Amino acid sequence: MKEISSKDNKIIKDAASLSEKKKRDEKGLFIIEGPNLLREALDENMGIQSVFVLAGGETPEILELVQEAELDGCQVYAVSREAFMRISQTDTPQGVIAVCAKKRFSDEDFFGAKGSNILVLDRIQDPGNMGTLLRTADAAGFSGVMLIKGSADPFAPKVVRAAAGSLFRMPLKTGLTPEDAAKQLEAHGKKAAAAAMDAPRAYYDEDLAEDFALIVGNEGNGVSDQLMALARHISIPMAGRTESLNAALAGGIIMFEALRQKSLKKR
Amino acid sequence: MKEISSKDNKIIKDAASLSEKKKRDEKGLFIIEGPNLLREALDENMGIQSVFVLAGGETPEILELVQEAELDGCQVYAVSREAFMRISQTDTPQGVIAVCAKKRFSDEDFFGAKGSNILVLDRIQDPGNMGTLLRTADAAGFSGVMLIKGSADPFAPKVVRAAAGSLFRMPLKTGLTPEDAAKQLEAHGKKAAAAAMDAPRAYYDEDLAEDFALIVGNEGNGVSDQLMALARHISIPMAGRTESLNAALAGGIIMFEALRQKSLKKR
Repeated sequence: MKEISSKDNKIIKDAASLSEKKKRDEKGLFIIEGPNLLREALDENMGIQSVFVLAGGETPEILELVQEAELDGCQVYAVSREAFMRISQTDTPQGVIAVCAKKRFSDEDFFGAKGSNILVLDRIQDPGNMGTLLRTADAAGFSGVMLIKGSADPFAPKVVRAAAGSLFRMPLKTGLTPEDAAKQLEAHGKKAAAAAMDAPRAYYDEDLAEDFALIVGNEGNGVSDQLMALARHISIPMAGRTESLNAALAGGIIMFEALRQKSLKKR
Repeated sequence: MKEISSKDNKIIKDAASLSEKKKRDEKGLFIIEGPNLLREALDENMGIQSVFVLAGGETPEILELVQEAELDGCQVYAVSREAFMRISQTDTPQGVIAVCAKKRFSDEDFFGAKGSNILVLDRIQDPGNMGTLLRTADAAGFSGVMLIKGSADPFAPKVVRAAAGSLFRMPLKTGLTPEDAAKQLEAHGKKAAAAAMDAPRAYYDEDLAEDFALIVGNEGNGVSDQLMALARHISIPMAGRTESLNAALAGGIIMFEALRQKSLKKR
């Protein structure tokens, strides 16, 4: 384990620069924080490039992870608090940070097994919502997530945190135009649907079990007219006096209804 | 409209002190920010005590709301940016802040019409999760929300924001012990259920349409043993390699399944 004490060390500066989307895009790298994410990254054979341990903050759990990372050939650094905090994106650092390579997935991975469902995020802005949607798509067995141009960066630190490891597994396509997305969905026989308040049919009255693409729209403005025009419209009936749901919640409710229908078909 | 320019004015200091839970509890007051929440507070006849408008930041929307608030007898202040920012709890202030009285609800309100469902939050910590759960319970027609001792304060600024107006409508019982909660649920015939990973029955195979109390547990530690012992255990089957869902998502999926079942019964 090498030691770095200066926060102006080039290795520290390079890692810290990954807080910027531009640098993440250029280098194809992103940052994960904390032992839980590092555990998952090791289990999923993510391309971990380097690991930074806060000197003096080594718990037995972190030491075990670091040993495993070194055996895997990762470069591990013990760094001063000052240097660590330059890289960290959280107020309450968890003692370990790693730089990972973004995984590449084939189209085959993305569209998954026959009948797989797809999630389309149409300019989702809030990093917490985006991370939660990625995590939920993973849990609901969706095979890939398309991100329309104007969506938040899925490798931004807050998204990575909320996604809780799903970024290591979930094939993504980013920066798509609505036309691109529509063409690809059609080519793979995925039938798009989007939630619309005034839609006459409830989401649970639609067949969502297979080859379904759920479009979740921007928090303020919903799904764009372009994508809305080619999607079935489904409503989420509500019983209270509130007229809206958080975007991640609305998406999660429909994704798990799709999974429920898939399970019932198998019985 | 009175003007206040000093951030050390007593009225400003009193409003700013509501960022502390202790003061909110003492005074029975809390803070809302932005025109959307003020609109809802006026519509719901919340006890708005005072309204603070950022001098120079008055949009036509804000001016209309302020006029309505004045007609309702609220004290309105035009305040300097410095004074405004002392009260505001956000980085991007929205030009208007109001101090509201916490609404009181009767037991009858809380347990609602025959067959109503209840949400129980067992030490939920994350303010975003708590706000989203309150908003979702409102949307799913749940009649009241119990908060077990150790939960976040539902009137904390971040909860208020994520709850998006549901706090104006949703009857709450706060600071309950698990014993209190269990006794009250039993007395009103509400059958408790909690998500458990290893439960043999899926949530959609349980009858949740009526007199159902959903317990959602702490983000890290789940539902306490005490409450777990008296609840039916239901699982949320997942299809991906992820083993967990965000607490608000898990709660929302089950609440909307309960609403789906209620709707089907009525057909």
